[in-house]
Amino acid sequence: MNFASDNTTGAAPEVAAAVARANSAAHAMPYGADPLTRGLTAKFSRLFEREVAVFPVATGTAANVLGLSLVLPTYGGVFCLESSHIYGDEVTATEMYTGGGRPIPLPGVDGKLLAPELAKAIAQHRPGNTHTVQPAAVSITQISEMGHVYSPGEIARLAKLAHRHKLAVHMDGARFANAVAALGCRPADITWRAGVDILSFGGTKNGCFGAEAVVVFDKARAASFLYRRQRAGHTFSKMRFLSAQLDAYVHKGLWLELARHSNAMMRRLANGLARIPDIELRTTPRANIAFVNFPNPVWRALEKAGFTFYHWGNAHWHTARLVTAFSTDPADVDRFVAAARAASSGRKPKRPMSFLPRF
Amino acid sequence: MNFASDNTTGAAPEVAAAVARANSAAHAMPYGADPLTRGLTAKFSRLFEREVAVFPVATGTAANVLGLSLVLPTYGGVFCLESSHIYGDEVTATEMYTGGGRPIPLPGVDGKLLAPELAKAIAQHRPGNTHTVQPAAVSITQISEMGHVYSPGEIARLAKLAHRHKLAVHMDGARFANAVAALGCRPADITWRAGVDILSFGGTKNGCFGAEAVVVFDKARAASFLYRRQRAGHTFSKMRFLSAQLDAYVHKGLWLELARHSNAMMRRLANGLARIPDIELRTTPRANIAFVNFPNPVWRALEKAGFTFYHWGNAHWHTARLVTAFSTDPADVDRFVAAARAASSGRKPKRPMSFLPRF
Amino acid sequence: MNFASDNTTGAAPEVAAAVARANSAAHAMPYGADPLTRGLTAKFSRLFEREVAVFPVATGTAANVLGLSLVLPTYGGVFCLESSHIYGDEVTATEMYTGGGRPIPLPGVDGKLLAPELAKAIAQHRPGNTHTVQPAAVSITQISEMGHVYSPGEIARLAKLAHRHKLAVHMDGARFANAVAALGCRPADITWRAGVDILSFGGTKNGCFGAEAVVVFDKARAASFLYRRQRAGHTFSKMRFLSAQLDAYVHKGLWLELARHSNAMMRRLANGLARIPDIELRTTPRANIAFVNFPNPVWRALEKAGFTFYHWGNAHWHTARLVTAFSTDPADVDRFVAAARAASSGRKPKRPMSFLPRF
Amino acid sequence: MNFASDNTTGAAPEVAAAVARANSAAHAMPYGADPLTRGLTAKFSRLFEREVAVFPVATGTAANVLGLSLVLPTYGGVFCLESSHIYGDEVTATEMYTGGGRPIPLPGVDGKLLAPELAKAIAQHRPGNTHTVQPAAVSITQISEMGHVYSPGEIARLAKLAHRHKLAVHMDGARFANAVAALGCRPADITWRAGVDILSFGGTKNGCFGAEAVVVFDKARAASFLYRRQRAGHTFSKMRFLSAQLDAYVHKGLWLELARHSNAMMRRLANGLARIPDIELRTTPRANIAFVNFPNPVWRALEKAGFTFYHWGNAHWHTARLVTAFSTDPADVDRFVAAARAASSGRKPKRPMSFLPRF
Repeated sequence: MNFASDNTTGAAPEVAAAVARANSAAHAMPYGADPLTRGLTAKFSRLFEREVAVFPVATGTAANVLGLSLVLPTYGGVFCLESSHIYGDEVTATEMYTGGGRPIPLPGVDGKLLAPELAKAIAQHRPGNTHTVQPAAVSITQISEMGHVYSPGEIARLAKLAHRHKLAVHMDGARFANAVAALGCRPADITWRAGVDILSFGGTKNGCFGAEAVVVFDKARAASFLYRRQRAGHTFSKMRFLSAQLDAYVHKGLWLELARHSNAMMRRLANGLARIPDIELRTTPRANIAFVNFPNPVWRALEKAGFTFYHWGNAHWHTARLVTAFSTDPADVDRFVAAARAASSGRKPKRPMSFLPRF
Repeated sequence: MNFASDNTTGAAPEVAAAVARANSAAHAMPYGADPLTRGLTAKFSRLFEREVAVFPVATGTAANVLGLSLVLPTYGGVFCLESSHIYGDEVTATEMYTGGGRPIPLPGVDGKLLAPELAKAIAQHRPGNTHTVQPAAVSITQISEMGHVYSPGEIARLAKLAHRHKLAVHMDGARFANAVAALGCRPADITWRAGVDILSFGGTKNGCFGAEAVVVFDKARAASFLYRRQRAGHTFSKMRFLSAQLDAYVHKGLWLELARHSNAMMRRLANGLARIPDIELRTTPRANIAFVNFPNPVWRALEKAGFTFYHWGNAHWHTARLVTAFSTDPADVDRFVAAARAASSGRKPKRPMSFLPRF
Repeated sequence: MNFASDNTTGAAPEVAAAVARANSAAHAMPYGADPLTRGLTAKFSRLFEREVAVFPVATGTAANVLGLSLVLPTYGGVFCLESSHIYGDEVTATEMYTGGGRPIPLPGVDGKLLAPELAKAIAQHRPGNTHTVQPAAVSITQISEMGHVYSPGEIARLAKLAHRHKLAVHMDGARFANAVAALGCRPADITWRAGVDILSFGGTKNGCFGAEAVVVFDKARAASFLYRRQRAGHTFSKMRFLSAQLDAYVHKGLWLELARHSNAMMRRLANGLARIPDIELRTTPRANIAFVNFPNPVWRALEKAGFTFYHWGNAHWHTARLVTAFSTDPADVDRFVAAARAASSGRKPKRPMSFLPRF
Repeated sequence: MNFASDNTTGAAPEVAAAVARANSAAHAMPYGADPLTRGLTAKFSRLFEREVAVFPVATGTAANVLGLSLVLPTYGGVFCLESSHIYGDEVTATEMYTGGGRPIPLPGVDGKLLAPELAKAIAQHRPGNTHTVQPAAVSITQISEMGHVYSPGEIARLAKLAHRHKLAVHMDGARFANAVAALGCRPADITWRAGVDILSFGGTKNGCFGAEAVVVFDKARAASFLYRRQRAGHTFSKMRFLSAQLDAYVHKGLWLELARHSNAMMRRLANGLARIPDIELRTTPRANIAFVNFPNPVWRALEKAGFTFYHWGNAHWHTARLVTAFSTDPADVDRFVAAARAASSGRKPKRPMSFLPRF
């Protein structure tokens, strides 16, 4: 009964089986010279409807900063949101992987970066001025840390602006599957067709043990990737165990099937909660994350009943983040809603219970 | 029939079962806040007969350079062998993880660093001279890349010298298990009791999917480890799947049992080859690595028969590296010996077939 | 007739003479082993009324980031203002010198960081949380980039808060002399007595060719400085030519005499401009920087008359920055005021001419 | 009477006068936007008989590592000699400026790298192998640290080999003037015409206070230089004082005149010493450095007489390094020779007095 995060889950049965299968082979050449790893290029190229370069790594942070290291010079900056993982959750990973490049935090709306803010930031950083960090990239998170989904058009607007100023476009797709499932689009529609240059294609949160793919849409840009991954300690000697996960994950649409379940569980949860008068959903969740205001008695009752979720906020505001996953049991969702309803006063609160500032 | 490397293997059944078991739990809190990860401290403290700090990572490179980053300042150097992994196989990982610290290559004998060479190098780098890289650490590899084993006394001599000059002692224990098995000693005897400060405790080559432990013997020294691992992208959200491997690996001596098998297979192989007149074992292997000179007809016959192993050498010399593993089948060993014997001329060669320089 | 910046000046006659004098000596041992450099410790210790460690460098950026490198680990952050030199004018120098540490921009008032903002930022960065940049230092600029002066009490409040959370306190004193002159205090009052740990003591803008001193108040903290300066390429072989500048600069209070003149020229300028009805001084300058709104005709007339100054602003606002220096000629000030008055309409404008947002 | 190093000197009168002249101007725009700095491009382009990009910095280390940072990626290595400044005298500057690139020490002869050693090293580092540091550059020192001079042909052979493997060629020209003077060639002959891509053009040791020029022969390669210099803290606000030195230094051949004097003083010294039977010149010096073996009584007599020079060696060997400079007084040279002769036994020693290993 865990709604804390999709990273509290294990692996999907198909993924676990693929790892076991890979383990049954007597031997495989190391460092990616195995058939499973070699097969990923064709698989991901089909998935994205163009030739791509693809590289397995084990964590989302590694995917993000190895990807960024391809486009961010030591004197460059990558625009991102203050709420983004690369700014707020990876200590100084971007700096480390780029030899000193800088993530530059911008304000967002719903965890999304909007084109006017980006335009303003580019202008303020005065490209070509030798005193300032040089704008080199922009990184967006799909779905956003606030659970929102960038539309293909929103991405295209950002990317067009970025490319006009020679910035590369990176997408942190830790929950990329949830976005594609929510939009019902093709993976290409919200990546290279919209102008994304490099994608962290997440697997871990949606059914892998620990596997992400760095997808580089312009293969020439990836020329130095293997050296960079090796020096970062992210080249697995037994890489087939990463590749087996990714191979199974994208096989016959498993990844989307898992994400659709995850999103459906969130809808079920949100629909249930929306009918309880003193519970406020901060937005209508389209993917698998919701931010919800509970009155204190409900909050206490849920935690007492053993439901786990994160508190977000500080001295000034406070809210609950609820996350569903590929493995969420509908019965658990229903139990959560029932427990919330049982503890509810049944009356609408007189005023908003908390204030969630824009991220 | 792969004698190329112990990293061409899969995972031991006990390790695979432990991962499957960890996956059967519904949920676990991420980033190491799970019972398996938390339990490692007690397990490794027992194993090493003192309180240690222990951190799971997925690769040997990560273990090495995260460990070194605790003791190597940006202006410091770590002495190592030219043949060491941190110097020759990890691109510029040490530099990356330490913000610019330098691995300094020294000559060795049998892949081992000896105290007089270390003393000379320390003197040459003039500690306190503000123009030179400051000696800060020494890193040795146990078993060595040439298959040799440091005795407790050899380690103690190096460590005493290092500590007299305030250098920390790091051990790359990618094949630590093979060393303990070969020496029949306690893990403590060739680590902290002999003066080792930080150990990369290898699991991957000896039965894990991909799991290593950084063991820090003076816990105070490890205070910044978690920040460093996070910024390196080596903190797994589903860390229990690393910890499950390590937990099973050290459970009831599995790791030593696996290493003993591996070493025994090498003895069986070496004994077999030693009786063939025109094959030269460069040394008597004590662990699981041998360097062997084959006459060309034998070499060709073995490869034709499907045996895989690495060629070491260059324009001037040439030799074969043979490695056994926890999973090596004695029947494969016997087949290898038989194939070599069958292709042998049955006569002693007139002169040494190749020259293997000291590493 | 240059009011663009105090760095458009040359060197004060006493400083130039000291360099010439140092050049007349036949030889001097290099890299700081000369009497002038050695004498700085005593001189600066007297100046600051306690034993200090002092190191000459040639630029303000070098002083700032070498100083910060003593206290900022690779996983740490230094809080500063968005308008600060280390954030906005030194590209990624902080990152480079610290192996990946991060300058974190905070909002300020008058170019000054205030304690409540710092407290909030520390809390948000959750010290001890292994996902976030660890707060390690705070850097303030005296006088501020907006020309304001931190009082001893303001500094003490920030420093007390910083030290309570184990943050080191760094002061960018590019215009430290102007601050001491404006406050009429002792150098110690706005540095170590108020809690400053490391000071960039500026000389270049106030009469040196190019010389700054890094002053470390707790000498133990400076132990690694010489290695860091050497690897940064900031250890001059002929260091006596830096030291000669600093020696002359602090000799018999020259530095304060120069700064008093600079500040007096700004008062003269501000007083003159304040009497012109359609010119707005944004604040009453206490040191040597003012931000002034001119009506367009005045602006054009001044530039046409050959006066140089920087435009600050963007599409939304616009203002002029005026800076006086140790060498500013009172006649030039008077000419500036006269030219402005001549071009003035003589009438108060109906509404504020521009909007200068808080920095 | 200082023969310790050419960096114990001051500035040449013409250089000092140029700085004074630059200081007499009322103002100059900062950070290189002044006429003296702007004029350097034309001056150096004439000097090198092609269009070059040229950037003033204050130290040789800065020149070396800023130059290297243009061509050395974070995963790349630069081949150099163990005796080179970038390997042995700049702590970890190369690592710092390149975000983790590695200087790789090779053996040399007379302080010179020879093509066969370079070829061997390139092969050993296996370009394209993703486990090894990628060969990216080679750096040679002209004149060498052992006082020898690379001929145009020697440089061309190295450069041809380097370029065939896509390595850039860097020259540490701390004593470039002494080399050009010794060879009587044109500056282009031992730089771009021979294949050098980037030159540290030294001024400090030969008559400047502290000024070096980074000369980039392919201007496109220099596109990021200004950002790199700024983040390193090596962009002087009052840059005209660096540029004035360089401008005067290359004006009407002053730099070569100074170097010719320096070399001539060494010839005078060497010729004098060569006639003393128990003094051994290790080589016939062509530039301004000699290594000399003195019998102990001569050594003691010289030091007692107040002559300063460095001892080179260790427990096993010992020699004296003598360096002349642009300002060396012939009378001092003669006094040195006379003092040596007076202390000499007048007899040839029975066997070589010391052993100087090859660098």
